Amino acid sequence: MSPKLVLVEPAGPLNVGSVARLCRSYGIEELRLVAPRCDPLGDEARLMAVKGLPLLQRARLFPTLAAALADCGRVVATSGRPEGEPLPLEDPDDALAWLLAGDPVLPSALVFGREDRGLSNDELLQAGRLLQVPTPTPHGSLNLSHAVAVVLHDLHRLDRQAPAPAVAAASQAPCPRGVLEAMLSDAEELLLEVGFLLPHTAHARMAKLRALLQRGQVSAPEVALLRGLVCQLRWASRRPFPSSQDH
Amino acid sequence: MSPKLVLVEPAGPLNVGSVARLCRSYGIEELRLVAPRCDPLGDEARLMAVKGLPLLQRARLFPTLAAALADCGRVVATSGRPEGEPLPLEDPDDALAWLLAGDPVLPSALVFGREDRGLSNDELLQAGRLLQVPTPTPHGSLNLSHAVAVVLHDLHRLDRQAPAPAVAAASQAPCPRGVLEAMLSDAEELLLEVGFLLPHTAHARMAKLRALLQRGQVSAPEVALLRGLVCQLRWASRRPFPSSQDH
Repeated sequence: MSPKLVLVEPAGPLNVGSVARLCRSYGIEELRLVAPRCDPLGDEARLMAVKGLPLLQRARLFPTLAAALADCGRVVATSGRPEGEPLPLEDPDDALAWLLAGDPVLPSALVFGREDRGLSNDELLQAGRLLQVPTPTPHGSLNLSHAVAVVLHDLHRLDRQAPAPAVAAASQAPCPRGVLEAMLSDAEELLLEVGFLLPHTAHARMAKLRALLQRGQVSAPEVALLRGLVCQLRWASRRPFPSSQDH
Repeated sequence: MSPKLVLVEPAGPLNVGSVARLCRSYGIEELRLVAPRCDPLGDEARLMAVKGLPLLQRARLFPTLAAALADCGRVVATSGRPEGEPLPLEDPDDALAWLLAGDPVLPSALVFGREDRGLSNDELLQAGRLLQVPTPTPHGSLNLSHAVAVVLHDLHRLDRQAPAPAVAAASQAPCPRGVLEAMLSDAEELLLEVGFLLPHTAHARMAKLRALLQRGQVSAPEVALLRGLVCQLRWASRRPFPSSQDH
C-alpha cells in the first residue's frame, strides 16, 4: 500500500497539479488536501497534472491535518526550517526507511507543508519522523513540488533496494492517529480538570507530551492502556472527596 | 567544480526558471541553454527562478548541444525513452558516480532534453553515460524541472556519501568534447573521400563509431593519436597513385 500524500493548505495550483502528476508517476494512489488555498481543479492545476488528473479529481479534502491523518499509522512530515523543530530532523533515507518498514495494514502518510511557511509545530508533532531535504547551500530552498519529487524519488529508490520489511509485531506498530488524538484530547480535558494544565499553559505542555509520545510511536495496545488510565483518573478525580467519617 | 547544467531547446519558461532555482539550491554554478524555444528571461521564468535569477541572467546560450559541450569532459545525459538508446541506460547512482569521479580540470556536464521529445540519438551520443530516472509505473513521466530536481538531489547525496574520488590519471580522463568532435569531423570527411562512407549512409555509420568511442570515453592522448592517424590517412589517400614506374 503506497503512502497517502498530504498537502497542507497549498496555495499554488501549479504545485497541486504537479504533485498529482508526480503521484501518478511514482505510484502514489491517494492525494489528500488539507484546506487548499487555491482551486485544486482549476485550469492551472489541470494543466500540470497531465496523467495525474484522475488522481487529482478524486483527491480528498480535509479541514485539518489531524483529520487527514486520522486513519494513518506511520507519518513522515517534511520540514525546511533549520532549527527549532519539536522532533529531530532526519535525512530522507532514514525517515523513509522507517516509513517503508511500517505496518502493512494501517496506511502511512507523507506530509508537505505550505509553500510560504511550512508546517506549524503542532502539525509537525503529528508526524513520527521529520524529514529535511538536504541541499548544499545554506539557504537552498525547494519549491513544494520539487520537494515532493525528490522525496518520492528517494522513497522509490529505497523501496527497490530494501528487502521486504519484516512485518512489524502488532504491539510495535503505531496506532491510527485518530485514536491517539482522541486519547490526547481526553487526557487534556482531564488534566485541565485536575488543574495540572491551566488554560493558558495547556497547549505548550500538551505539545511536550505529544513530542514524547510521538518519539515513541504509541501502539494500539498502548493507547488503549493510556485511555483506560485517563478514564480511571477522571473517575477518581470526580469522586466526591472522601470525608474523614469514612475511616 | 560543479557540473554545467545544460537544457536543450527548453520550451517552458516555468521550467527554465524552476531549473535556475534548483541550480542555485544545489550549488550548480553555470546554466547553459541550447537554442531555447521560450524567453528565458521573461516574466514566467523570473517568477519561478526566485533566488536563481542571477544564475539565469548569466546563463550562456549556444546554438547546438555540441557547442555547449565543447569544453566539457564527462557528460551525462538523461533519457526518458524506454528503449532504442545508442548507449545503455543507467540508474542515476551509477551514471552520477561516474560523473563525480571525473577529471578535476575539465568541466563535466549534465544534459536534459526537450520537454516533448527529449534528446535525439545524435545528441545522446555526445554523452559518456545515459541516465534514466526510474519510476515504478511503466509510463511514469516527469516534468523537465522535476527530473532536474531528482538528478541534482541524487548528485548531492552521492557527493556527500562518496569519499573524495581519486584523481583520474590524465590518460583515462576523457578529452574535451570539442576536440573529439573536431577529430570525428576530420574522420568523416576523410572516410567520405575514401569512399568508406557514402553521403546517404555517412550519418548512420558515424553514429556507430561515435557510440563505440563514447563507451570508451576517449582521452586527450588518444584523441591526439586518432587525429594523427586521420591526418596521415588523408595524406596517404591524396597522394598521387604510385605508378608502376616507381618500383
